Amino acid sequence: MKLLKVKPLEEIFSEWKERLANYNRKTITIEVSKSTGFVLSEDIVSPTYVPAFNRSTVDGYALNYTDTIGANENIPVFLKSAFSIAMGEHVTSHIKPGECAYVPTGGMLPENANAVAMVEFCELFDRDKVAINKALSFHSNVIEKGEDIKKGDILIKKNTLIRTQEMASMLAMGIKTINVYKPFDVSIISTGDELVSTKEENLRIGYIYDINSHIVENLSKDSGFNIVKVQMVKDDFDLIKNAVLDVYEKSDIIIVSGGSSKGEKDNTVHVFESISNDSVFVHGAAIRPGKPTICAYDNKRQKIMIGLPGNPVAAMMVYKMLFGWVNEYFGLRTSRNKHKAILQINIPGSVGRAIIQPLRIENKDGNYLAYPVFIKSALISGLTKADGFTVIDIEKEGLKKGDEIEFEFME
Amino acid sequence: MKLLKVKPLEEIFSEWKERLANYNRKTITIEVSKSTGFVLSEDIVSPTYVPAFNRSTVDGYALNYTDTIGANENIPVFLKSAFSIAMGEHVTSHIKPGECAYVPTGGMLPENANAVAMVEFCELFDRDKVAINKALSFHSNVIEKGEDIKKGDILIKKNTLIRTQEMASMLAMGIKTINVYKPFDVSIISTGDELVSTKEENLRIGYIYDINSHIVENLSKDSGFNIVKVQMVKDDFDLIKNAVLDVYEKSDIIIVSGGSSKGEKDNTVHVFESISNDSVFVHGAAIRPGKPTICAYDNKRQKIMIGLPGNPVAAMMVYKMLFGWVNEYFGLRTSRNKHKAILQINIPGSVGRAIIQPLRIENKDGNYLAYPVFIKSALISGLTKADGFTVIDIEKEGLKKGDEIEFEFME
Repeated sequence: MKLLKVKPLEEIFSEWKERLANYNRKTITIEVSKSTGFVLSEDIVSPTYVPAFNRSTVDGYALNYTDTIGANENIPVFLKSAFSIAMGEHVTSHIKPGECAYVPTGGMLPENANAVAMVEFCELFDRDKVAINKALSFHSNVIEKGEDIKKGDILIKKNTLIRTQEMASMLAMGIKTINVYKPFDVSIISTGDELVSTKEENLRIGYIYDINSHIVENLSKDSGFNIVKVQMVKDDFDLIKNAVLDVYEKSDIIIVSGGSSKGEKDNTVHVFESISNDSVFVHGAAIRPGKPTICAYDNKRQKIMIGLPGNPVAAMMVYKMLFGWVNEYFGLRTSRNKHKAILQINIPGSVGRAIIQPLRIENKDGNYLAYPVFIKSALISGLTKADGFTVIDIEKEGLKKGDEIEFEFME
Repeated sequence: MKLLKVKPLEEIFSEWKERLANYNRKTITIEVSKSTGFVLSEDIVSPTYVPAFNRSTVDGYALNYTDTIGANENIPVFLKSAFSIAMGEHVTSHIKPGECAYVPTGGMLPENANAVAMVEFCELFDRDKVAINKALSFHSNVIEKGEDIKKGDILIKKNTLIRTQEMASMLAMGIKTINVYKPFDVSIISTGDELVSTKEENLRIGYIYDINSHIVENLSKDSGFNIVKVQMVKDDFDLIKNAVLDVYEKSDIIIVSGGSSKGEKDNTVHVFESISNDSVFVHGAAIRPGKPTICAYDNKRQKIMIGLPGNPVAAMMVYKMLFGWVNEYFGLRTSRNKHKAILQINIPGSVGRAIIQPLRIENKDGNYLAYPVFIKSALISGLTKADGFTVIDIEKEGLKKGDEIEFEFME
């Protein structure tokens, strides 16, 4: 049996970076109202001034601030209430010296008005006389036309991940459609002679349910990917190759789980090579779990091919490592935020391999405490006890109780 | 004009807690394969042993470990290879003393075998003689039947948020359907005479696009809520009341944005009271932005009613505060993780009000640096510069440069 030539994670990522440097991303046009989670493929330029006119930020009386000089509670100034402005009204009237006009919050200021006295500081006398109890300065309680954004300003930059606030800002400016990067089309193939579809009612002894396809599908949806097809095939070169060829044209990413090592029944690497010569650049990762990992890239047709370990825990952790990097590289997700925790129990290291260590996290008075979750049998149910994970560097001989470590949540 | 009697956030949350103490959550039965993001309304009990049989964790030869005592590279022990086990095979044969059987990773061990020698430490001679170069201990490279989970064990507890690993664990055990809490049904009503649907091409001066309904819909989807209906109505008591009544039976949560203050045109609080007497327990929150906030609860019919400020920034921040609490209370989300950052610029406080302060966050060598984002005009585009927010306590007079602060990301 040949041994895998394992590569450290950092080397794997830098080789991906090299290969993806000229990746030509597809774009699509979508409605702004359904754009959260997408990444802009263009700068968004403001088509208008925001606000489009001088607006009041309070309910009050629009006036010329010079008319209020010296006013206070004991010596108010009296202005004539010339007219009243309704919310949403396009104001064409103007105020004269000594006049004011009622304006609601958000309402447009009339010409010659440059400040608004809040109703709290005003008192209405007779029918049209208003006592103003406070001196105002220029643009008090006013948002100036274009104060926030000027026409032609770049509102949101290319490559920005669209969140609620970006979506809302574009809608507020009347932008209806935008160009974004097309989400990656992903196909998933789960291989293994022992696998049975989770749709089957009964499991004969010796067989296991195929859960890897569900894990990979679910994590891919979280990544924002579009799922093209999910297939389950036996450990057979031709069957796996046909499954890959079936989705090759339609997919940007092809993920095969199982058969990723170097045994007799491990066909994945041969399938990738047979479809695209010299595409495989990683066969074996210096991580635990996750040694039997394959990375391949068809440069001509821009196809990312990944071989994941058949073990579900390893498959899940390797997916998180690889696509954590891929998603960060393409600006798809901001959720890979590192947190700091104090380790509560020693963790042994592993010579020549980085360790992806699942952790249970406790929040104590705003500080995170981390407890390693050891999953001896590598069964997926062990991960239900984990809230996050840390990566122990290849050079480290382990971590000690009391060490400050970095971790990511695993949601 | 009447003034709002503002309540501090903590008081608002404790009043919610009191009212929701006996909330009777609806449940639904769903497929496990589509269960991520749901919350379990039952304990999940293991229907089986995991693994269901003694399994090998390596490719190798299954044997009785006592046959390998004293074996090493110089003095191997020789065993007879009695038969070969295929992946997925239900093994009924057994090995005799001095015998071994080839077993692939994940394969079932034959009777009498209690350890597996990795192929790396084995050499095949003749046709059926295997040299074992290493002494093994009991259960070396073996996962014992039921080692991970025993039949009847609680696999996942009630009230657990289902993540990829919980879903996969249930599927691995052959569980097909589960009972979860039904996602809240939410209706959204946006009010304001100045509002125009974002579907309209042109905006007359004095009018603004209704973006609050999009903000609330989007955040509600992030919360995992089911959107019943989104409506936009003018500032009119009857119109708002009809809009609320239209969705009342079908909704668990009714959110009205706009008209939440105490002015002449502020109808929301009267609508809530007219539908359910004495339901309003908050009208005014001691936060900035977000003073004109309404909380109401129809105890008899279990309806949560929220009045959000009309200003989009305030509406978004108040939504995040209120539903951050609601979601945490119902165990819906784990994403409200607090992070720590070092403040880079002083932030002034506000007497008698907590401040929800948007922040721009920089990650410098694994430490977060926070810069306040001041949004003078309260326009939503200001929030595109924010990565998160912090809450400045009502008692605090502000925060100083160099202070360690807690913040949440705003995604």
